[in-house]
Formats: sequence, C-alpha cells, structure tokens
Amino acid sequence: MRKAEVFVTLKPVVNDPQGLTIRSGLHALGFDKVTDVRSGKYLLVTLDEPDAAKARQQVEEMARQLLANEVIEDYRITMLQGGGL
Amino acid sequence: MRKAEVFVTLKPVVNDPQGLTIRSGLHALGFDKVTDVRSGKYLLVTLDEPDAAKARQQVEEMARQLLANEVIEDYRITMLQGGGL
Repeated sequence: MRKAEVFVTLKPVVNDPQGLTIRSGLHALGFDKVTDVRSGKYLLVTLDEPDAAKARQQVEEMARQLLANEVIEDYRITMLQGGGL
Repeated sequence: MRKAEVFVTLKPVVNDPQGLTIRSGLHALGFDKVTDVRSGKYLLVTLDEPDAAKARQQVEEMARQLLANEVIEDYRITMLQGGGL
C-alpha cells in the first residue's frame, strides 16, 4: 500500500472567503498577529500499487481529473515514505 | 512574517463520507487501485511574529481553540522554512 498526500489550494489570485472568515475568528479570539489565512483541502489517498513511480503518476492524474479544479486551484502531491506496508 | 501549515484530519475511527465519495468518484474514473481516501483541511496561516517558538505556540493554541474540533479531529502543524521575510 502506498499513501499519497494531495494538497489542494486556491490560486493566490482567487478570493478565499473561508480563509477570511477563519482570520476574523482568530482575530476575535485575540490572535491579532495573524495577517492571512488561506484554506484548502488535504487528501490522503491509499493505493494498492507496488511501483512508486506509477503510483505517483496515477495520483497526478487523479488530481488533474477529479481532486483539483485547475482553473482556480493549485495542487501539490507528496508520496509518503514507508508506504510499502 | 512566518507561515505555518495546519493539517486537520478526521480521527481514524470517525466516518468520512466525503472521503468515501471521492473514492467512489475515482473508481468510476477507472482508478481502481485506490483503496482509501481520507479528506481533511489544509490551512496556511501567516503571522507577524518574529519569534519562531512563540509563533508555533500561537498556532498550536489556534488549532486547539478554533481550527480543529479535537473531539473528532486530529491536527498537525508544520512551520515553513524561510518564513522570515
């Protein structure tokens, strides 16, 4: 089993109302040193694919086809070490 | 400015309907080697706090107070390098 972390974030030019709301909430709680919050998705994908290169390629394909909307979002993939259980 | 990444995930014992739906979607697209998907939140917090230890402590406090619901969620914090701009 291999595990991949996929981080999906809004592109910097896209408004992030959820992040702004979280920032307001943090300010209301007294965390006034917070200047910005950007929100995104974190996905942990487990695959039954022994080949590391193929696994990564598949996760890239998943991100492009389903996990991220490339018009407004960026994504980053990290393959976890020790995923060969 | 310091940047911290906060990853918020559902605890392993908590059902994750969003993750299951994404898994079904991936299977429908032909990614049949996917055995599991867990979904979570990714937050990038920017703070105006020169002291690294204090910044980390504040982000921990934010996670406990607002960003994560510790009853059903776990969180992990990573301070980004080169955040001293």
